[in-house]
Amino acid sequence: MPYPDTFEGFSVYSHEKWSDFKRTELTPKTFGDNDVDIVVECCGVCGSDLHTITGGWGQRKLPLCVGHEIVGKVIKTGPKVTLCKIGDRVGVGAQIRACLECKICKSDNENYCLHKKFTYGSEYEDGIVSQGGYASHVRAHEYFTFPIPDDMESATVAPLMCAGLTVFSPMYRAKIGPGMKVAVLGIGGLGHLGLQFARALGAEVYALSHSPHKKEDALKCGAQHFIVTSEPDWQKPWAFTFDFILNTADVTHTFNMVDYISTLNINGVFHNVGLPDEPLPEMRATHFLFNGASITGSHIGSRPEVIKMLEVAKEHGVKSWVEEVQVGEEGCKEALERLKKNNVHFRFTFVGYDKAFPNRVTEA
Amino acid sequence: MPYPDTFEGFSVYSHEKWSDFKRTELTPKTFGDNDVDIVVECCGVCGSDLHTITGGWGQRKLPLCVGHEIVGKVIKTGPKVTLCKIGDRVGVGAQIRACLECKICKSDNENYCLHKKFTYGSEYEDGIVSQGGYASHVRAHEYFTFPIPDDMESATVAPLMCAGLTVFSPMYRAKIGPGMKVAVLGIGGLGHLGLQFARALGAEVYALSHSPHKKEDALKCGAQHFIVTSEPDWQKPWAFTFDFILNTADVTHTFNMVDYISTLNINGVFHNVGLPDEPLPEMRATHFLFNGASITGSHIGSRPEVIKMLEVAKEHGVKSWVEEVQVGEEGCKEALERLKKNNVHFRFTFVGYDKAFPNRVTEA
Repeated sequence: MPYPDTFEGFSVYSHEKWSDFKRTELTPKTFGDNDVDIVVECCGVCGSDLHTITGGWGQRKLPLCVGHEIVGKVIKTGPKVTLCKIGDRVGVGAQIRACLECKICKSDNENYCLHKKFTYGSEYEDGIVSQGGYASHVRAHEYFTFPIPDDMESATVAPLMCAGLTVFSPMYRAKIGPGMKVAVLGIGGLGHLGLQFARALGAEVYALSHSPHKKEDALKCGAQHFIVTSEPDWQKPWAFTFDFILNTADVTHTFNMVDYISTLNINGVFHNVGLPDEPLPEMRATHFLFNGASITGSHIGSRPEVIKMLEVAKEHGVKSWVEEVQVGEEGCKEALERLKKNNVHFRFTFVGYDKAFPNRVTEA
Repeated sequence: MPYPDTFEGFSVYSHEKWSDFKRTELTPKTFGDNDVDIVVECCGVCGSDLHTITGGWGQRKLPLCVGHEIVGKVIKTGPKVTLCKIGDRVGVGAQIRACLECKICKSDNENYCLHKKFTYGSEYEDGIVSQGGYASHVRAHEYFTFPIPDDMESATVAPLMCAGLTVFSPMYRAKIGPGMKVAVLGIGGLGHLGLQFARALGAEVYALSHSPHKKEDALKCGAQHFIVTSEPDWQKPWAFTFDFILNTADVTHTFNMVDYISTLNINGVFHNVGLPDEPLPEMRATHFLFNGASITGSHIGSRPEVIKMLEVAKEHGVKSWVEEVQVGEEGCKEALERLKKNNVHFRFTFVGYDKAFPNRVTEA
């Protein structure tokens, strides 16, 4: 079979009918010297996919094929590629490109590069819009392909590419380790990974949830303590306790922030990785007088952090809890509709790509 | 003259008539084993004094004698005092007591101790309310008396006790030093010290002000760059520049926070030390995605930080720009009324205590 000019994927054609996925021919960007083609083996379903197709984060150029928690096999490499080779199993996350030349990129902060492109929905210089991993193949810049260590299962490692990195990077930058107390707020797709990584990094781990029903899962994910935040005065026993709160909730606008801040140790950090559509609750400069706490957030992570994350995940057995779903028009509809209702425990991973794309090219 | 049971000071009797200072007899707390009596030589006028007497920070028990930027001479020490001795010139800032036993105190964060007392307006265990430095004497716990290095002028060092520490502590904790870019936002009582300390710590220093008229002063205080924030798109050339913004402004509620945040380097810090009565502008979790910045604040500083600050100030010639005012009913009225109108350049220090209190005891 000749090497294909186009790929195939399941795309959304309107924000109104966001769960009507249709099989679509996809044109990848012009193949560059540092580009890599990957035949997709599986792809996690991220909350970003849902925000994007529903238009929750704004109108997008449609049709669009989403998906940015990709694991697959390299089948073609540009002439300057050195970071992976044909046959490698690699992951691809939410970012697919950066300039790699600015001071931001050169300080290992390419996730903040002003010239960054996302794995789907970004327009390249040639006018092509990037398309994600609900597809037969993806084309990526080599810098954004990450070797997956042996003995890690593709379906459970796929969600690490975005969700995992999103929770790992801030804790790694904050030098979370033994002797520190980390609270993970919200036990879901991000939080269940946050608990595992916090524990893997050596912290004493607290799970904070509105719902007492999350306790069993939280403990299985490595939490040593479980705190129900819907109980009155829940925060009182925990004043000055946590060095770091990883806030994965997307209902932060409903929080009494002063209660949460009060549980931070002196100069502790309240780190947002959940991205609700609503603004944060009102804050006052005086709220920081109690313990000198900070409020912050972050955007995914850098390549060195992905590589470190995979090393930590392999060593400590960190893996996403996933429900596997056959990729396809039907599977995409089902998974995204269930995600919208928060009916998932804790992530979906699309699999069965060979079945969905029986005629795709799998070797260069 | 026998050692006095009471002191004398200039007190405010009502929040409505907050500039009607009256000479008042003040009863200090019961003298404790670690207490020190200080005969006041001078006292800076802090914004907190104004917020307190006007009731801006809430109703207080009146009458009250304010003032917490004190320099004076130790004239009496409790039997367990080891940190200063009779005859020492010492400073006293906004805090006068902490438990010194909790984990917070033991980690040199006594400025966040839950049992802290302020130099004025805090009730001691014996029911006495602490009274500040617009007075003949103050009684302090030794831990909150700081030796003033020789060759530093009392009137210009007094404002360091609160304003100086407030700007020094967060920069010292953030390890500001050579190779870092610090922006000081707001060039006033706090800001003119922030500029000097940022420079003394070795940073490249940027002054940010709404008013172009502040340029000359800012440069004299050590700023190497001056940015006028009232110009359109002022922030654009400074994207990703500052490692640390020290926000001393008390009009933060009027800011376009996204503009300010955009000038921070990756993982940079926006540190509030100004305490406006109004809430901070609305923020969204997504605002932190641009550069992973933090928003934070702090409350004065610890004893080791005061001592370090005085060392840095002496070495680098950091001093408050002060206008000296004769302490008294008239002087207090004038200074506080002018401060209310922001008609000060940049701090007032009350002097002439021997004249105001001609009969006070100046030796034990």
